[in-house]
Amino acid sequence: MPAPAQRRRPRGKCAMLKNVISPKNRIDTKTFEKKIAPLKERLGILQRSLHDAGIPVVVVMEGWDAAGITRSTKMVIDSLDPRGFTLHTIEQPTDNERVRPFLWRFWVRTPQKGRIAIFARSWYSRAISAEMQKASWTKSLKGRTIAINNFERQLSDDGAVIVKFFLHIEKEEQKRRFIAREHDPLKAWLVTPALWEIHKSYELSLPVIDHFLEKTDTKSAPWHVLDATDENFAVLKIYTALEAALEKALLVKSGEKPAKLPDPLLPEKRPVKRSAGNYKDGKSCTREECQPALDALQEEMIRVQGLLFKRKIPLIIVYEGWDAAGKGGNITRLARYMNPRGYDVIPTSAPGATEKSHHYLWRFVRNFPQAGHIAIFDRSWYGRVLVERVENFCTKNEWQRAYREINEMEADYVYSSGGGIIKFWLEITKDEQLRRFEQREDDPLKQWKITDEDWRNREKWDLYDKAVDEMLARTSTKIAPWTVIGSEDKWPARIRTIEKVTSYCRDLLE
Amino acid sequence: MPAPAQRRRPRGKCAMLKNVISPKNRIDTKTFEKKIAPLKERLGILQRSLHDAGIPVVVVMEGWDAAGITRSTKMVIDSLDPRGFTLHTIEQPTDNERVRPFLWRFWVRTPQKGRIAIFARSWYSRAISAEMQKASWTKSLKGRTIAINNFERQLSDDGAVIVKFFLHIEKEEQKRRFIAREHDPLKAWLVTPALWEIHKSYELSLPVIDHFLEKTDTKSAPWHVLDATDENFAVLKIYTALEAALEKALLVKSGEKPAKLPDPLLPEKRPVKRSAGNYKDGKSCTREECQPALDALQEEMIRVQGLLFKRKIPLIIVYEGWDAAGKGGNITRLARYMNPRGYDVIPTSAPGATEKSHHYLWRFVRNFPQAGHIAIFDRSWYGRVLVERVENFCTKNEWQRAYREINEMEADYVYSSGGGIIKFWLEITKDEQLRRFEQREDDPLKQWKITDEDWRNREKWDLYDKAVDEMLARTSTKIAPWTVIGSEDKWPARIRTIEKVTSYCRDLLE
Repeated sequence: MPAPAQRRRPRGKCAMLKNVISPKNRIDTKTFEKKIAPLKERLGILQRSLHDAGIPVVVVMEGWDAAGITRSTKMVIDSLDPRGFTLHTIEQPTDNERVRPFLWRFWVRTPQKGRIAIFARSWYSRAISAEMQKASWTKSLKGRTIAINNFERQLSDDGAVIVKFFLHIEKEEQKRRFIAREHDPLKAWLVTPALWEIHKSYELSLPVIDHFLEKTDTKSAPWHVLDATDENFAVLKIYTALEAALEKALLVKSGEKPAKLPDPLLPEKRPVKRSAGNYKDGKSCTREECQPALDALQEEMIRVQGLLFKRKIPLIIVYEGWDAAGKGGNITRLARYMNPRGYDVIPTSAPGATEKSHHYLWRFVRNFPQAGHIAIFDRSWYGRVLVERVENFCTKNEWQRAYREINEMEADYVYSSGGGIIKFWLEITKDEQLRRFEQREDDPLKQWKITDEDWRNREKWDLYDKAVDEMLARTSTKIAPWTVIGSEDKWPARIRTIEKVTSYCRDLLE
Repeated sequence: MPAPAQRRRPRGKCAMLKNVISPKNRIDTKTFEKKIAPLKERLGILQRSLHDAGIPVVVVMEGWDAAGITRSTKMVIDSLDPRGFTLHTIEQPTDNERVRPFLWRFWVRTPQKGRIAIFARSWYSRAISAEMQKASWTKSLKGRTIAINNFERQLSDDGAVIVKFFLHIEKEEQKRRFIAREHDPLKAWLVTPALWEIHKSYELSLPVIDHFLEKTDTKSAPWHVLDATDENFAVLKIYTALEAALEKALLVKSGEKPAKLPDPLLPEKRPVKRSAGNYKDGKSCTREECQPALDALQEEMIRVQGLLFKRKIPLIIVYEGWDAAGKGGNITRLARYMNPRGYDVIPTSAPGATEKSHHYLWRFVRNFPQAGHIAIFDRSWYGRVLVERVENFCTKNEWQRAYREINEMEADYVYSSGGGIIKFWLEITKDEQLRRFEQREDDPLKQWKITDEDWRNREKWDLYDKAVDEMLARTSTKIAPWTVIGSEDKWPARIRTIEKVTSYCRDLLE
């Protein structure tokens, strides 16, 4: 970790780091080997059981420099089947990761069901490193810990086991180890002047790290802070704590009890009024009548897109709406007004096997836009509280949890990337849908657009109607409100979406 | 493209660039709009048909600087449904792409079935740019064109339509356009001194580009070299050629004729002898007896891995073998001797929906190691000529084609990354397999390892036996030979694989 800027720091009690459990005596090699053998065998068996039970596991290894993260990690891996885990060594982000939200590179590395992801250093080292560069970090630290806690809770709610270790050594011990390394010809190059700078600011970092540990020591992802002065002791502790956590997860799973009680349902923020009409004076307008407005918007769209690109601000545009409400045509018109080098349209279809074996948000986060780019989602993560809810593709607990998860994810994206998000609901009446379905069936060029599934969905109009109301009410947050586009007339609807996008971007750029 | 080093260049006839079809008269806007309208509508319909037919399409847009690649690309995209295509703007590689083989970043962007991938600049610009930096490029140019032709042919054999456009303008026209841009306040910043340098070396580049075009103008991926002086003319030509290619592909598909006759089967290189025994004097050896040898190998493995890492040489290790031949235990031992930060184990299971909708090599190429890393494949692309062949999961044409595709892919990886590849076949006798199956069924800790499928596969031993023989004979190339590991006794087998890896790495490092 880098040397911190020397400014205001919390003067905490260092509750986490002052109460580290230490061994009474050093553990000699013979005792260690005797004790570790059955633990290793047990971990191998647990790995297999977790695989069969489809439980994903996240292990976080953190600690002071020279506390032995690499060695301890290697000791844990030693007893695992290499085909069932992935080790992620977290260093500086690559240029592709740098242009994404902070947690993006960790989201894409979350394990599939039944696999173990081990992070040797993690979002904690990256967050601490980022925060320590700042003169005053109280506020942003709070934002970070909330984002991290949300991330870990979401994984845990989805069935993942999360075990976090912090390897603690005293300043003097760190000094001894640095000096020992300097005398080892194979390791001397590791001990850079920058590392000595970090050593010198040990006391300054102490309350910062402690603060982080304390605020993220949650029930779903607890910390195990260990005295790593005696490496044998630390490794044994890691094994014991890891196995206890994994055994507990297996017991819960086999008991078929829900992993946790459902969260209290997120309160409705405000009802959002839907209206299918969209023209000021109740009049429709034709393509020709709309053309002048469209021409003006096209120029404006190119202008604001260029500014977003130059200022490296990402933008997400979500399209949801009734079947036949005109999402496709609307997206086509919007996209036509943009520079094709700077946007992607992401179609959302039913999840495949790989996607199902991850948290449902995983596949969407993967497609989040990089800095300066625009991602247009044709249907989205809201499928969870619409089609998946109505068709019972997920449990009630799962879709109810989703409102909160979605709000958190959207807020984290906006805060950590500085980007924008626009969410469109395309509204039409039931009668208009029927008219369009029939029109599509009559038109040989449009027949492919209409399937039996569309008719089946239509039968459940009322159920969908209720789900839409609830979605709009619970996820129309201040930071990511919904915009209802009355789409009974398609041309005015198109104009309104593009108008909304340009005006939103102008606000964002201010 | 950068200014070339001024050395030996081919003095070709510029057959491709001298015979560009030019329009007799300029096409005025009115005529253009009249002609383009039906072409646009037609392209939209074709996109839908290709989607339904599951045909992937690759469009390559290349040309001189200022020839209008961006504008022409935009004109093509304009008539497409944005949910069905992806535009890939190819610029400098990211740091993640830089540490992979040359074609890696293009392989991972190949389209799914039914989707269109448009490359605005492509592997051609990257290859030409790389080659032009060199003093003498005749030899490496040859390697590049072979690799590119193989890549395109493999995609085409898998059903993809590939259409390539080169937008040609004369040197004087380029100069006029540069100057015009310099006078446009919005575009002046684009015209850098480096760009003028490139302009000055127009004549030098001419034969190089021409050579590239000529050598990669294949039946499966032909070039359309167009005079782009009149942009309207170029866009009309692009539409016409693209639609002709797409219509042809649809006709072939609907006619249910095979897209092409099977290639003549790759000749057998040499039969590879298989033997299940593995100990010098026909004697087995126990774990304890092997321990000293293993200890020595462990140290050596860490040493060579460190050297590969420092010199940024990637390594692929492929494990194939009979069920119960001991792949898992073998990989575990090998991996245990490595630094976990530098390797990945990639388990291969049956492909999912996404994987099936790409070329079968796609998912493996995605996992190719970055420079300095080791990728251990637990089963691999050889599944195509083993299980997929025996179980009829692919057509005869497909698995027969695979020998050549695999040899080409492995050779390209080795040439373009400077890396190594080791392929292990773990051999046991049919009797030994039976013994191990029964042992597994009796051991509660190992029961999970044995399934009905294993017993079913065993019934087809002879079919597999034949497939293995053929695989070894046809894919044991000079650059990527097979190593058969007699695995009747597991400890000597493990020693032999690790010995092979270390000795191979020593050779690679020389």
